[in-house]
Amino acid sequence: MRLYLAGPDVFLPDPFARAARLKSLCRAHGHEGVSPLDDVPDMPAAWRDLPEARRIALCNEAHIKGCDALVANLTPFRGVSADVGTVFEVGFMRALGRPVFGWTNDPRLLFARTLAAHPARRDGTDWRDADDMLVEAFGMHDNLMIDAAILASGGTIEAEDVPPEARWTDLRAFERCLARLAQPSG
Amino acid sequence: MRLYLAGPDVFLPDPFARAARLKSLCRAHGHEGVSPLDDVPDMPAAWRDLPEARRIALCNEAHIKGCDALVANLTPFRGVSADVGTVFEVGFMRALGRPVFGWTNDPRLLFARTLAAHPARRDGTDWRDADDMLVEAFGMHDNLMIDAAILASGGTIEAEDVPPEARWTDLRAFERCLARLAQPSG
Repeated sequence: MRLYLAGPDVFLPDPFARAARLKSLCRAHGHEGVSPLDDVPDMPAAWRDLPEARRIALCNEAHIKGCDALVANLTPFRGVSADVGTVFEVGFMRALGRPVFGWTNDPRLLFARTLAAHPARRDGTDWRDADDMLVEAFGMHDNLMIDAAILASGGTIEAEDVPPEARWTDLRAFERCLARLAQPSG
Repeated sequence: MRLYLAGPDVFLPDPFARAARLKSLCRAHGHEGVSPLDDVPDMPAAWRDLPEARRIALCNEAHIKGCDALVANLTPFRGVSADVGTVFEVGFMRALGRPVFGWTNDPRLLFARTLAAHPARRDGTDWRDADDMLVEAFGMHDNLMIDAAILASGGTIEAEDVPPEARWTDLRAFERCLARLAQPSG
């Protein structure tokens, strides 16, 4: 299968080396990995005149449309949740109706991560933060739209307990997604 | 137009009053607002057996599919970026090819918000955080996938400089989205 490799991996110090490593693991599992850093061979000429950020976004959307499934690195990024660029892409692929898999190197659930980072108080059966905003407590890895979409699409979320210093290098949970994609579903 | 009202507004202390207020403003501008809290009249019976979080997610996806456009509250939520549930829905509607509008009560760009919250250092022309991850510097309100998708869809991002204590009550930027949706595009 052609797999779109979504994640904040593009922000790593050597994103091309990271993409090559992810693609190599895809090949080992019988898949073809597509990185956000890849060129779009048939890019419309008009896109060349766009600001770089807008061109990158349209290329990523084109890559997702050209893939059979999406594998998202949902490891929390600068906060309690996954990188928002990655989450946008999860929602995009979900609307296309194709499988989405997620992996994270932080095995804690969203509720535990939020309470650890934001002071919250009990309010009956709810928890509320300093802005009086509800803390989601559904026993999910991240916001319910993300977890539920992945499950409804036929995917899974693979979580690994990785020490902080290896959070952006450990690929065991990613490989578990690839192994699951190699199996007949159901 | 039928407008899906995406945002962390559902986490406010009285989310039903908030939804009623947003819908009332939609009506004043000639639109029909659809809240994530609304019932799905023709909900498949099988969804009733799902865990609550998964049922909510499928209902929200159904609401989005039933709307002509999406208006997203992108005010930063528990961190430097928009609420990830909202961002998922922006990506979902973008893949459906319909207009997406965004509004935020924090006028600072993502780069400024990130540097204010996360220690970063210069690395040539780049900025990198404590994990050596690149800080995006494209002059956009949020991650490039979000801003660029909104612009490509025909929408805009309306930002208002709102003091922190009114960040979850001020609706001027939201109303500007509604006014723009009432105008012929182009």
